[in-house]
Amino acid sequence: MRIALDAMGSDRAPSVEIEGAVGALRELEGQFRIVLVGDRERIEAELARHEGVPAERVEIVHAPVRIEMGDSPAHAIRRKPDSSIVVGLNLLKRGEVDAFISAGSTGAMMAGGVMILGPLKGVDRPAVGAVIPTGSGYTLLIDAGANVDTRPHHLAQFAQLGTIYARDLMGIDQPRVGLLNIGEEPEKGDERAVEAYRLLSASEGIDFVGNVEGRDVIHGPCDVLVCDGFVGNVLLKFYESVSGFMIGLLRKEMEESGVELDLRRAFRKLDYTEYGGAPLLGVNGVSIICHGGSPPRAIRNAIRVAVQAVERGMVAHIERQLANRAESSPSQ
Amino acid sequence: MRIALDAMGSDRAPSVEIEGAVGALRELEGQFRIVLVGDRERIEAELARHEGVPAERVEIVHAPVRIEMGDSPAHAIRRKPDSSIVVGLNLLKRGEVDAFISAGSTGAMMAGGVMILGPLKGVDRPAVGAVIPTGSGYTLLIDAGANVDTRPHHLAQFAQLGTIYARDLMGIDQPRVGLLNIGEEPEKGDERAVEAYRLLSASEGIDFVGNVEGRDVIHGPCDVLVCDGFVGNVLLKFYESVSGFMIGLLRKEMEESGVELDLRRAFRKLDYTEYGGAPLLGVNGVSIICHGGSPPRAIRNAIRVAVQAVERGMVAHIERQLANRAESSPSQ
Repeated sequence: MRIALDAMGSDRAPSVEIEGAVGALRELEGQFRIVLVGDRERIEAELARHEGVPAERVEIVHAPVRIEMGDSPAHAIRRKPDSSIVVGLNLLKRGEVDAFISAGSTGAMMAGGVMILGPLKGVDRPAVGAVIPTGSGYTLLIDAGANVDTRPHHLAQFAQLGTIYARDLMGIDQPRVGLLNIGEEPEKGDERAVEAYRLLSASEGIDFVGNVEGRDVIHGPCDVLVCDGFVGNVLLKFYESVSGFMIGLLRKEMEESGVELDLRRAFRKLDYTEYGGAPLLGVNGVSIICHGGSPPRAIRNAIRVAVQAVERGMVAHIERQLANRAESSPSQ
Repeated sequence: MRIALDAMGSDRAPSVEIEGAVGALRELEGQFRIVLVGDRERIEAELARHEGVPAERVEIVHAPVRIEMGDSPAHAIRRKPDSSIVVGLNLLKRGEVDAFISAGSTGAMMAGGVMILGPLKGVDRPAVGAVIPTGSGYTLLIDAGANVDTRPHHLAQFAQLGTIYARDLMGIDQPRVGLLNIGEEPEKGDERAVEAYRLLSASEGIDFVGNVEGRDVIHGPCDVLVCDGFVGNVLLKFYESVSGFMIGLLRKEMEESGVELDLRRAFRKLDYTEYGGAPLLGVNGVSIICHGGSPPRAIRNAIRVAVQAVERGMVAHIERQLANRAESSPSQ
């Protein structure tokens, strides 16, 4: 198995990526190689700083260009063929690697996933899943920002994609699916939510537990939380930032009172580096998006998730499930 | 000035309401009376438990029925004419009181505000504003849940409503207005956000600072944050619940480590009871919605906000601003 990693993606590339990759090769189980995609010279220089790297398990594919945060994603995918993201996704498309991971431009990874890998048969809108920590464990929020202006049947598809991910990667046999909404009753919410509720209630193979309000999300009443990418993105980014805000208030109080509480330990559950990035689900390949600010640990965990997704046949599972559904209901 | 208070609204009615009202009469400046709306017998019994209540400043209007959380809001407004919310809003409509406050059903307060008070001239969709604590102070989130399926020009109106509230009640001369979105650039977001950005950029009298992402909300880059009621409601309720979740993690750590940090003091900024409820803006009257779980302090502060809104002429300000705009652009 070969896992491609964008070596030019993160804010501290390529050192974070190389350190994450070396850690993965040392610590993770499974027979896999890492294909580092990026500026060959810089990658080699960085690799040379690590001792005992198993050279036979590391390859480099030269890609000298970086897609910048300011670049328009779709435009960059077309105009930067030598960029690490485009080169990496093309390796995946041609079957030369089994997965691709990047901590670079999220927009370019989403656009490139759809434009280069393409959606699987039966998938109208590939979606980003983000694993968020909750009181009862973890919840996959889908869509976390790949799509806006979704229609109800897109949300029903997100439930399918999320269910397969939760089964294959989160180890949940029968994932509970909730619909993010502003009230519990079926008739609550905007037009999209009301119709999505109806579709989800009638979806075979989906364990739909009903609407989930903003106040309930954190308690983890479901394993998969379905929503349009606009609200999903707002919620995810707000969640990530609010803990920082509260930590700031706590630090101030600790300073003023002289009391020292181990915040890192208290909030270890909130550490996103544990979850290994956000998969783009519904495209023809295992494609994982990491935070731009990822530390090596997050990269290593994304490699772990990628290896597992390949081993467990996640893409084939999605293809089988969605293509069947497309055939049985051609009108959608 | 007469401020009507639903005595049957909160989860611990009427004791919380009466205690809040008595506190307001004792502590707040301004010449006002409190009109308690609810079951006369229960209110009198509760009042008798307090000493030194200035009887000449308290009136009771009998309303024996309560709108329950499970009631369909619009249905309840029509079918429960003797409910405290319907009686209170009718007092306000007839000009017998100057404001109405309830910690009862939020849905019924929103529906009743529109159905009984009616929108002001030029206001298409009255909206709920919620004051949330941020790193730089407070931000008015509007709409916090009164409207879904809004159109771009509704969002532009929310900016007008929010600007007037921030000026009259938050003491900000030139409130900065942001648009909640999933990217910073004008072309980011769903169709609604893109068009709302354009309208807000062209709005006279609005200090539009651009798009605000989920991750930026908590830092307080604006005084008024405009959004559709779906995402606003999800965000508000999530915010209220996530601090509870984090406090739970901290308590666990304090227990395990034996270290005691004063969390109440650390998070005093997050205490919603300070902000005095969420106004329904754009209706013909001062109407304020409080949490069902409000303590007496929150009720007292809602009374303070209501008194100020009346004193400062908030409704007249909205009417003047919006009616003018309606005349100058009749096509909307």
